[in-house]
Amino acid sequence: MDPDSLLTVKPIGRVILGRARGAGGDCWEEAESEIEIDPAWRDALDGLDEFSHMWVIWWLDATDDAPIPLRVHPQRREDLPLVGLFSTRSPRRPNPIAITAVRLLAREGGRLRVRGLDAFEGSAVLDLKPYLSRGDQIADSPYPEWLDRLWQESQ
Amino acid sequence: MDPDSLLTVKPIGRVILGRARGAGGDCWEEAESEIEIDPAWRDALDGLDEFSHMWVIWWLDATDDAPIPLRVHPQRREDLPLVGLFSTRSPRRPNPIAITAVRLLAREGGRLRVRGLDAFEGSAVLDLKPYLSRGDQIADSPYPEWLDRLWQESQ
Repeated sequence: MDPDSLLTVKPIGRVILGRARGAGGDCWEEAESEIEIDPAWRDALDGLDEFSHMWVIWWLDATDDAPIPLRVHPQRREDLPLVGLFSTRSPRRPNPIAITAVRLLAREGGRLRVRGLDAFEGSAVLDLKPYLSRGDQIADSPYPEWLDRLWQESQ
Repeated sequence: MDPDSLLTVKPIGRVILGRARGAGGDCWEEAESEIEIDPAWRDALDGLDEFSHMWVIWWLDATDDAPIPLRVHPQRREDLPLVGLFSTRSPRRPNPIAITAVRLLAREGGRLRVRGLDAFEGSAVLDLKPYLSRGDQIADSPYPEWLDRLWQESQ
């Protein structure tokens, strides 16, 4: 593969019920959303509901074409340190791919009802993967002081 | 956005030391790998080493152009049930995006030494994200019997 080549991806479905665009970035942990998977891929969902949780890989379509910053203040808070973009989950990234672990509540045909998805309504879904405790669940994962501050505040 | 539109992504770096292509899919948990991030994005790594773990989002470039199956036997084992593709981490997916949680061992400039990456050497890296225990770490995540069998065997 040519290192400079562009790779292409294509939505397999959409978030049809979710966070309103422009809504805040907090408090989505308990929110319920719905995803609709395109008919062509519905059979590929079989058995997913035997897992309690799954990953939703979705597209963070930006609302502007401004350049991607290399360093950001987490959650745009200037009282927090300026850190490298890859040290954050900032939505403005070189490749706007988001990963969110969600609780799978129900499947009906191509529709999945989930809890904990922070995607905006209308977002393109690129992939679904089972949550695998072996590999995905890191028991002990220290993190920076600035993130501890953020989390303390939003408890 | 047109639902049928193709979205494009571009590598931000490569796996420069990793699993040999054709090597088995098991036993990478303890393997050490190296990622090299392109100079344009190196400053975006600042602060990442304050996290113990991160996600590597990488491109599962397939070795063939065969159609993507909707159902698969996990790990191609015919003694395991045929399940929907999205119920597995099979590398052959509509959008060949892999996510792997790794231990970040060291950063030197644009080079990251990690443990637990299952990417093949030369794989394109699309994104790096900090592992966030709040959100990424699901304490209790039941899974199907077939996966239990697989895991029991590979202990």
